[in-house]
Amino acid sequence: MVGFRYKQAQSVAETDVRAFDGLLKKADEYIKNGSGRGSDFLGWRDIGIRPGDAEHERIKAAAARIRANSDVLLVVGIGGSYLGARAVIEYLKTPYHNQLKNGDPEVYFIGNSFSGREFNAVMSLCEGKRVSVNVISKSGTTTESAVAFRLVKKYMEECYGREEAAKRIFATTDARRGALKSLADKEGYECFVVPDDVGGRFSVLTAVGLLPAEAAGVDTGALLAGAVAERESLFAAGLDNPAYTYAVLRHVMLSRGKKCEVLVSYDPDFRFMGEWYKQLFGESEGKEHKGLFPASVTYSSDLHSLGQFVQEGSPILFETIALPRGSEKDSPRVPFDKENGDGLNFLAGKTFDEINERAMLGTLLAHRDGGTESLIVDFGGRDARSLGELIYFFFIACAASGYMLEVNPFDQPGVEAYKKNMFALLGKPGYEEGKAALEEKIKLI
Amino acid sequence: MVGFRYKQAQSVAETDVRAFDGLLKKADEYIKNGSGRGSDFLGWRDIGIRPGDAEHERIKAAAARIRANSDVLLVVGIGGSYLGARAVIEYLKTPYHNQLKNGDPEVYFIGNSFSGREFNAVMSLCEGKRVSVNVISKSGTTTESAVAFRLVKKYMEECYGREEAAKRIFATTDARRGALKSLADKEGYECFVVPDDVGGRFSVLTAVGLLPAEAAGVDTGALLAGAVAERESLFAAGLDNPAYTYAVLRHVMLSRGKKCEVLVSYDPDFRFMGEWYKQLFGESEGKEHKGLFPASVTYSSDLHSLGQFVQEGSPILFETIALPRGSEKDSPRVPFDKENGDGLNFLAGKTFDEINERAMLGTLLAHRDGGTESLIVDFGGRDARSLGELIYFFFIACAASGYMLEVNPFDQPGVEAYKKNMFALLGKPGYEEGKAALEEKIKLI
Repeated sequence: MVGFRYKQAQSVAETDVRAFDGLLKKADEYIKNGSGRGSDFLGWRDIGIRPGDAEHERIKAAAARIRANSDVLLVVGIGGSYLGARAVIEYLKTPYHNQLKNGDPEVYFIGNSFSGREFNAVMSLCEGKRVSVNVISKSGTTTESAVAFRLVKKYMEECYGREEAAKRIFATTDARRGALKSLADKEGYECFVVPDDVGGRFSVLTAVGLLPAEAAGVDTGALLAGAVAERESLFAAGLDNPAYTYAVLRHVMLSRGKKCEVLVSYDPDFRFMGEWYKQLFGESEGKEHKGLFPASVTYSSDLHSLGQFVQEGSPILFETIALPRGSEKDSPRVPFDKENGDGLNFLAGKTFDEINERAMLGTLLAHRDGGTESLIVDFGGRDARSLGELIYFFFIACAASGYMLEVNPFDQPGVEAYKKNMFALLGKPGYEEGKAALEEKIKLI
Repeated sequence: MVGFRYKQAQSVAETDVRAFDGLLKKADEYIKNGSGRGSDFLGWRDIGIRPGDAEHERIKAAAARIRANSDVLLVVGIGGSYLGARAVIEYLKTPYHNQLKNGDPEVYFIGNSFSGREFNAVMSLCEGKRVSVNVISKSGTTTESAVAFRLVKKYMEECYGREEAAKRIFATTDARRGALKSLADKEGYECFVVPDDVGGRFSVLTAVGLLPAEAAGVDTGALLAGAVAERESLFAAGLDNPAYTYAVLRHVMLSRGKKCEVLVSYDPDFRFMGEWYKQLFGESEGKEHKGLFPASVTYSSDLHSLGQFVQEGSPILFETIALPRGSEKDSPRVPFDKENGDGLNFLAGKTFDEINERAMLGTLLAHRDGGTESLIVDFGGRDARSLGELIYFFFIACAASGYMLEVNPFDQPGVEAYKKNMFALLGKPGYEEGKAALEEKIKLI
């Protein structure tokens, strides 16, 4: 199970932690009883899909078909409909997985920007390959994804004909209504469900994340089993569980003027887990002018870029290290060099992984001496079960931390503001009213 | 040339800007006269390599040889010895360039972490391909890069024999001394220079960035020409130039309690330019407990993750938008759909690029209404010359901003702290003294 350590943060005393007991107790009630704000969106809490249940088997069957008849899976989605799957795949399969010919289909994520260049690049990588598509959108009207899907649908129908294309397109969407659901029913796409009570950023353990991950070769049964086990462990521990303690420590740091949490990994493959974490916490807490700004770094690489700032810059940060237990398989060893011009023979025989661990410890102590505290989230490492544990740990920590902040951790009202302006500027029917005023404002830019 | 706009930041008045006149004047003197702290590292200011000069021709000749006899170029370097080249290549050639069979060699960056898994993945991508190597390190003893290079050198000698390997390895290092220079001279590697007066984060326009970029197919002559032209333009404008105005606006924001600058691009290919920017500003300013914490985002993708925070979260941010002028070539058009189930026919016929521009404008106005101001850096767009202009613009802005902060913008004393600990923990000769105390501290973690 996931562990959490903060004793190395010397400045934190037991009393600092206890000061948040009241807020934590309330947050716990909100989570367990569904009595807090946004409780319509607590569906992630009980992990709707269990390993091996009928829905999981249906996802696995679809993934098996994709794997059997496709060289490429195009995943069309944005935000929570893309970050989770990408994070899981890159961490477990490496960001190079599309280039390593290991028998798994290539997986590309599109429809998450308005970059025509990215769209064109990915489509050109599909040339001569057998393609399947997973389009993921609750409503089917999210602009970035819907626009990309119009083109992808056309491409698929041109390549395979309408009937065969329909067998190669999988829609993950609302169970009953919406533009994508209607289209899928009409065309005969197999559908998977974005549950009504699970927001995008909490959806990686639903079909949203599971289908692309399983198709990429991830053992989603183990991923789910890890999450289920973590859930049981956290719930059994009551208030004194590591996810809650992490949530409390975030508030201790906030109360000391820390404005920014930096999620640290020493593994470049974890980078998209950092992006996923930024959405999870940033979107859950960033409201009512509150919240810790979430950033992420990959050390030791970024010690050579942002390390200076963390060590000696504006003291607005703390670090949270996502730290795998155990060691990496197949980690190369530093060879002995009889010349030793680089003076590194003291490392000869050591694995990269062993050096990495010492870099982590040395950095933690150096940053603490510089005034930047580090919290540690220990998890099992690079296997699907451990990643499932970690994901569920972050879910609970995020919900608790958001409730302790006294916001609704499950809405995202601010995301509509730019869309409203964009629609008015693009002439979407129904948005005419604001257009003239916006056009005037634009002249002043 | 690069432009800068802030009038859309409604809260900023002319008097707010003028308040920094004194600090700016001093910063300008430091930059122009070399009279400030760290002036030994002002070498980037005059752009040592000019398009078409002898050194540039030598770089181009080496790149031409790599292009002629290699399928893969491995670039071994960390921090400033990797971010600039990677940023330039990804922006100008797309992050998918290694997969698009367009006649350019694949370029992989290694030696920038202790990830054995990444190292193994990249080496397995070299199988059956013709490989060249550019190892980049001022000293040759930077641990991450030196350790990787030990293995790469061995690999090359096993593949090609020592003599041919030496022709395929290019060292960018100190002109006269250091471990890598000695090794290169002994083995007969062609050498390029990391100048004494240019720090890593300012080195992209030296051989450090130019050789990998040219080998990848970037027109480095145009890149340099853009930088030279930007230099002339900025210097001719005196104090009233856009790079200085940007530096001043950063201080206006800082004086209002903004702790974090978010560099915004609407182009996923710009992502590594964001990483480069984070090192440039973070390492230059993050000292003496000062500096703006630099973050970067890719919109509209990240509007669906961090957008909520920027719109309504803790008001510690401002945005700086890197905005290309003109429009993208080959931007796909939204097709008309007679069913219009997604309701997006109002976009039919529009290019992705046109939608992106409206998204940018709508977002800027929405964020401003939410209290997050946006500054705009206008540049020419995705061509080497325009990127050279932008790079030099950021150099000058960073130097000015750092001097206005009254720090030395060109050192990075804090980067040594973790290395010292790491070396002690790893048993490096000469670091024995601190080891026992560190081991004790580690027990408490």
